Amino acid sequence: MKIAIAGSGALGSRFGFALHQADNEVVLIDNWVDHINAIREHGLKMTIDNQTHNAAIPIITPQEIPANVTVELLIVFTKAMQLDQMLQDVKPIMNDNTKVLCLLNGIGHEDIIAKHVSRKNIFIGNTMWTANLVAPGHSESFGAGSVNLQNLAPGEENMAIAIADVLTEAGLNAHFTENVHNTIYLKACVNGTMNGLCTLLDVNMADFGATKDAHDMVASIVKEFAAVAAFENVQLDVEEAIEFVEKCYDRTTIGEHFPSMHQDLIKNHRLTEIDYINGAISRKGRKYGVSTPYCDFLTQLIHAKEDIILK
Amino acid sequence: MKIAIAGSGALGSRFGFALHQADNEVVLIDNWVDHINAIREHGLKMTIDNQTHNAAIPIITPQEIPANVTVELLIVFTKAMQLDQMLQDVKPIMNDNTKVLCLLNGIGHEDIIAKHVSRKNIFIGNTMWTANLVAPGHSESFGAGSVNLQNLAPGEENMAIAIADVLTEAGLNAHFTENVHNTIYLKACVNGTMNGLCTLLDVNMADFGATKDAHDMVASIVKEFAAVAAFENVQLDVEEAIEFVEKCYDRTTIGEHFPSMHQDLIKNHRLTEIDYINGAISRKGRKYGVSTPYCDFLTQLIHAKEDIILK
Repeated sequence: MKIAIAGSGALGSRFGFALHQADNEVVLIDNWVDHINAIREHGLKMTIDNQTHNAAIPIITPQEIPANVTVELLIVFTKAMQLDQMLQDVKPIMNDNTKVLCLLNGIGHEDIIAKHVSRKNIFIGNTMWTANLVAPGHSESFGAGSVNLQNLAPGEENMAIAIADVLTEAGLNAHFTENVHNTIYLKACVNGTMNGLCTLLDVNMADFGATKDAHDMVASIVKEFAAVAAFENVQLDVEEAIEFVEKCYDRTTIGEHFPSMHQDLIKNHRLTEIDYINGAISRKGRKYGVSTPYCDFLTQLIHAKEDIILK
Repeated sequence: MKIAIAGSGALGSRFGFALHQADNEVVLIDNWVDHINAIREHGLKMTIDNQTHNAAIPIITPQEIPANVTVELLIVFTKAMQLDQMLQDVKPIMNDNTKVLCLLNGIGHEDIIAKHVSRKNIFIGNTMWTANLVAPGHSESFGAGSVNLQNLAPGEENMAIAIADVLTEAGLNAHFTENVHNTIYLKACVNGTMNGLCTLLDVNMADFGATKDAHDMVASIVKEFAAVAAFENVQLDVEEAIEFVEKCYDRTTIGEHFPSMHQDLIKNHRLTEIDYINGAISRKGRKYGVSTPYCDFLTQLIHAKEDIILK
């Protein structure tokens, strides 16, 4: 299959590498010059469970997309705030049949994608795969993951299943689901609690979970996500969602990791995706008339921390 | 006048020093051994606007209160969480006529004092004097301050005025007021915003004020204080209170200072007074059926930060 990865950072590289190894025709697209140069000179270095591989995968900027070349599948792996611009920029690589798959963290990306792509071509989901960038040109990932995905438009179920198959053949463990919005909201509950709270408190997930007020804060935030989700016909079981979040505290699995937002802001001094997680719940809350003070306050606090760190 | 200062840290020392210089018979009471030993050996060192004075003022622990010695006025200057125990411990120095003056930051201290002292003897207020401890036995203060105070029980106005006069004669610029709860709530709005927010974000007041979301966060918190205050017949003007808080951002005055809670927790790794500021609003909110999510969340976040730093 002809596949482009739009946004080839840590996780985009992980997916691009796997799909390339499974004999798909993969092109990576990115804007980061150091990263592009490193991959062009040395190939993509991909460390999976402490074993480092090397793959000669083409990487280009959106401006370098050749004329008359299009792909069958475009997988977007930008930061949330770059999604809109990236889709604008990679238009030349899409034709009327190009499918777009979005597995980004956060809520409501389909509304941004639908500005650029016909709804019948949009497939959304989420993934439990994680990766981090060791250096330009070098991505690293640990452990197993999975993908859940679904067609946005009715009638495209078979295409969703076909895309899941392509991913699964590449070892990415993908499943077609009939209620992807439920799994998206469930994962958003994790990001909507661990990301903002651990960033603000400068603490890993296990140490956050060891604080006496952790449970009450998580519960208050998850309840707001559930109240908003209900207006989108997504029935989140609050107790189950809280339990799902609190699995992050386990020191034998991921508990001692800092969430990605902490890496972005505290470690790398980059803007966060808070507007697409808690900020999205605040916006949807205002739209539906649901009060979301914990999401409002957490979004404001993270923005203030951005202003302070990035000033 | 025979006066005891119960809790003779930075500000207690500042008040004790001023009252001693004005020829009152002052005894300092404290539990901190290094501080007591330093004052006993070298006298209390008091630096006021860069000029250092020295005063031989007696200092004792509560356990050392001599039999049959009582004072006319006891001024409490403990941390809020030590108030209850201190009043228990200094009982021997009080007789049926001893007046107790409380100028502590925060809300609702009169309920704790009333467990130990008859309401007719309780006088409450607040102060704009500030001080910090340079070293054991050495307090430092800058600039001018003032005191507002009022009797808790009706009919004790003249005594409140007499106490204010004693403070004013010592240069402490005290005023009797008829609506002390209003000034207490107004100052609590400052503490309920600057303390928690600057501690959580690890930032001084001016830099906090420069963040884009500062105003909205302050406004949300102040509205909760006003909603609770209304149930106690205190009419806070929300706009005026927000303006009062935002004066703290001024770099030419106090803007570049970190609030006391930041000093307590981030600098000195001590528990904060959050339960007596935002936590008090949360408790009162539950009692009156007023929703106070910003105070709830801020109290939880500061407690989590305490758990993380002090573990």
